[in-house]
Amino acid sequence: MSDINGERLLADLQALAAIGGLPDGGVDRLAWSEADLAGRHWFAERMREAGIEPRVDAALNVFGHLPGTTGPWLPTGSHLDSVPNGGRLDGAYGAVAALEVLRTLAESRDPLAEQLEIVGFADEEGVRFEVGLIGSLALVGELDIERLRDGLDWQGVPVRQVLATAGRDLDRMVEVQQHRHSIKGFVELHVEQGPRMEADGIDLAVVTGIVGVHRQRIEIQGTQNHAGTTPFRLRHDAGRAASRAAAELRDLVLGVDAAAVANIGSMQFHPGGVNVIPGRAQFTLEVRHLDERVIGEAVWAFATRLERICVEEGCRAEVELLSSVPPAPMDPTVIDALEQACKELRPRPARLSSGAGHDAAVLSRHVPSGMIFVPSVGGVSHSPRETTSDEHLLLGAQALLRGIRAVAARIK
Amino acid sequence: MSDINGERLLADLQALAAIGGLPDGGVDRLAWSEADLAGRHWFAERMREAGIEPRVDAALNVFGHLPGTTGPWLPTGSHLDSVPNGGRLDGAYGAVAALEVLRTLAESRDPLAEQLEIVGFADEEGVRFEVGLIGSLALVGELDIERLRDGLDWQGVPVRQVLATAGRDLDRMVEVQQHRHSIKGFVELHVEQGPRMEADGIDLAVVTGIVGVHRQRIEIQGTQNHAGTTPFRLRHDAGRAASRAAAELRDLVLGVDAAAVANIGSMQFHPGGVNVIPGRAQFTLEVRHLDERVIGEAVWAFATRLERICVEEGCRAEVELLSSVPPAPMDPTVIDALEQACKELRPRPARLSSGAGHDAAVLSRHVPSGMIFVPSVGGVSHSPRETTSDEHLLLGAQALLRGIRAVAARIK
Repeated sequence: MSDINGERLLADLQALAAIGGLPDGGVDRLAWSEADLAGRHWFAERMREAGIEPRVDAALNVFGHLPGTTGPWLPTGSHLDSVPNGGRLDGAYGAVAALEVLRTLAESRDPLAEQLEIVGFADEEGVRFEVGLIGSLALVGELDIERLRDGLDWQGVPVRQVLATAGRDLDRMVEVQQHRHSIKGFVELHVEQGPRMEADGIDLAVVTGIVGVHRQRIEIQGTQNHAGTTPFRLRHDAGRAASRAAAELRDLVLGVDAAAVANIGSMQFHPGGVNVIPGRAQFTLEVRHLDERVIGEAVWAFATRLERICVEEGCRAEVELLSSVPPAPMDPTVIDALEQACKELRPRPARLSSGAGHDAAVLSRHVPSGMIFVPSVGGVSHSPRETTSDEHLLLGAQALLRGIRAVAARIK
Repeated sequence: MSDINGERLLADLQALAAIGGLPDGGVDRLAWSEADLAGRHWFAERMREAGIEPRVDAALNVFGHLPGTTGPWLPTGSHLDSVPNGGRLDGAYGAVAALEVLRTLAESRDPLAEQLEIVGFADEEGVRFEVGLIGSLALVGELDIERLRDGLDWQGVPVRQVLATAGRDLDRMVEVQQHRHSIKGFVELHVEQGPRMEADGIDLAVVTGIVGVHRQRIEIQGTQNHAGTTPFRLRHDAGRAASRAAAELRDLVLGVDAAAVANIGSMQFHPGGVNVIPGRAQFTLEVRHLDERVIGEAVWAFATRLERICVEEGCRAEVELLSSVPPAPMDPTVIDALEQACKELRPRPARLSSGAGHDAAVLSRHVPSGMIFVPSVGGVSHSPRETTSDEHLLLGAQALLRGIRAVAARIK
């Protein structure tokens, strides 16, 4: 069996990173921006050079398969867009590795090549519009076109106009989903974007699922008062109630499940005077886990404790649901196949959940899907400092090649 | 011994509350505003009606004593200015009660009257300029005229111009302090502005001192990171470190001294995204107590705990001193005299520290000084809802009359 061409893979990653590239090594390929379109054009050109037939749909997803094949295919890839001032690997790595895998198989006339499709998805990041995962949602027919129709990008430009500039018609995006029946699974290779693999010395990981995300905004009402004349025992300090709850969050969540994570990312006391006891405190809560029941239990544990603290402090809390995205478990057959393939390269690949969202979450609702992770140095992502060692980049692509073969053998 | 005329006192309070009065019962007599000047004019007119000789100095403090007396006098009074949208009693009560006491003594030809001076101080609140307590600072020669010379009010009007509009010359304010040697003590009657007396069923309290106030701004540096991909054990969460410290503040401070108070009035996490682990947290800390050593110990206890928490969380803290105003103990002889006088009216007057600043704090650095408090309903102040029952208002004025007599007998 022939293996991927490591030098070519790294050279392609470098070439793509130069499109929308920043002086500090980062990239800026905001969805459907000029740089993003140039990146998509580059991706299609690389396919053509390798004898792969590229196709760009109305959402600007870029697909490619061998000429003469008719599907249904097993697609692999990731997204080509980036966050502003982002890293060179988030998304791009999975797309370029997919290209390298299909190229390798085609060169050796491996029959597996005929089953493959590679893809560079559009607007996964969701920074430019309120919606993310636009490319994969369009592919599976889940995209809310009506919402996009009146939508504006973050600088007030209508979505329709952004697409028209890129030579695409928003209304035609409904046709994209006709492609859905041409795919029979999905495999995505991605950098971890977190510190767990590096911290635990893991080279390859198979993703068990993409966590669900529950978000709340919490407001605590107390009594605003003079901080000099009001003794502690007569206060109803909303700031103290919020701080006590925030301080206990970690233990409460870990008490429910060791794999659950949560975050209080914003906190504000009102009115904010140095000598005024806060009458109001506002903060956000986010809870993530692979099991929706665990999310519910963690949210409940925090709410119950917060309620108790508010009683003790003479305050009251109001909770507003911001969003609740359900977990996306990967397919057990695909997980097993990918794990077995990884074992050909490393004896003990880890099984990890993904704390960040991915196109695979969308695809997993329709076809058997799976993901492979390689480590991120320092766990850094969405930053020009995002990087992964060349060794791990090659290892991941090798695992993808073997994984695709194993998955294709099990799903028909 | 004749007693004060309660009806006249309440009528005068009502008349003064109408000057700069608001529809909801509050008052707006910002320092040296038109309403404040009208209030000072009213105060001087009431004196004249009662045969008291008014004098307005360069700072717009309004003094009054019996014609023909030459001092040194024992002054009593408070300030006539208010915060914007303030209460009708904060300051005004002490000034009007002083008027009523001298009026009562003069009417009965009590020789004590000749020892008294009454005063309505200027700009105690310090809202209009950065400086507060301007009237009393000017009286004792502590006012930083140079700082005022280039000063602007909160709407950008030069201090000099504000004073000129009121018919006063900023440069002449240095002459005010020549009056300092004409006073031999100071007694101030004030509403508590806090909830302690009401909560404990206390009708009269003698103030032991005005607390010192230490203020800091604290910034905690952690590591900003992705809240979905970074497990708890690998985080350096600045928000969590700040919350833990804030949650422990009360116990730490009470562990040092049961009478100490502290406040965290503002709190902000950065960058503030719902899915971003805070890389930075900022908050303010205020500690108040009558004993500067206790303030130091409480600040130290918090700093030590914060340092420990930061080590545990992998963060570091930077502390910036904002201000440190020393405590102002009242004079023991004056405290004893006022307590004895209060006991003529109520068997067990309390001894309380004042958590808020007062003109008496400034005067206490130069002459034996003391204060009497009456309860504030609900502890509310700096608000149109600030109030005290008529019964307590009369009781306080009666205590002031007796207190002045007791103090005058002990300080010569």
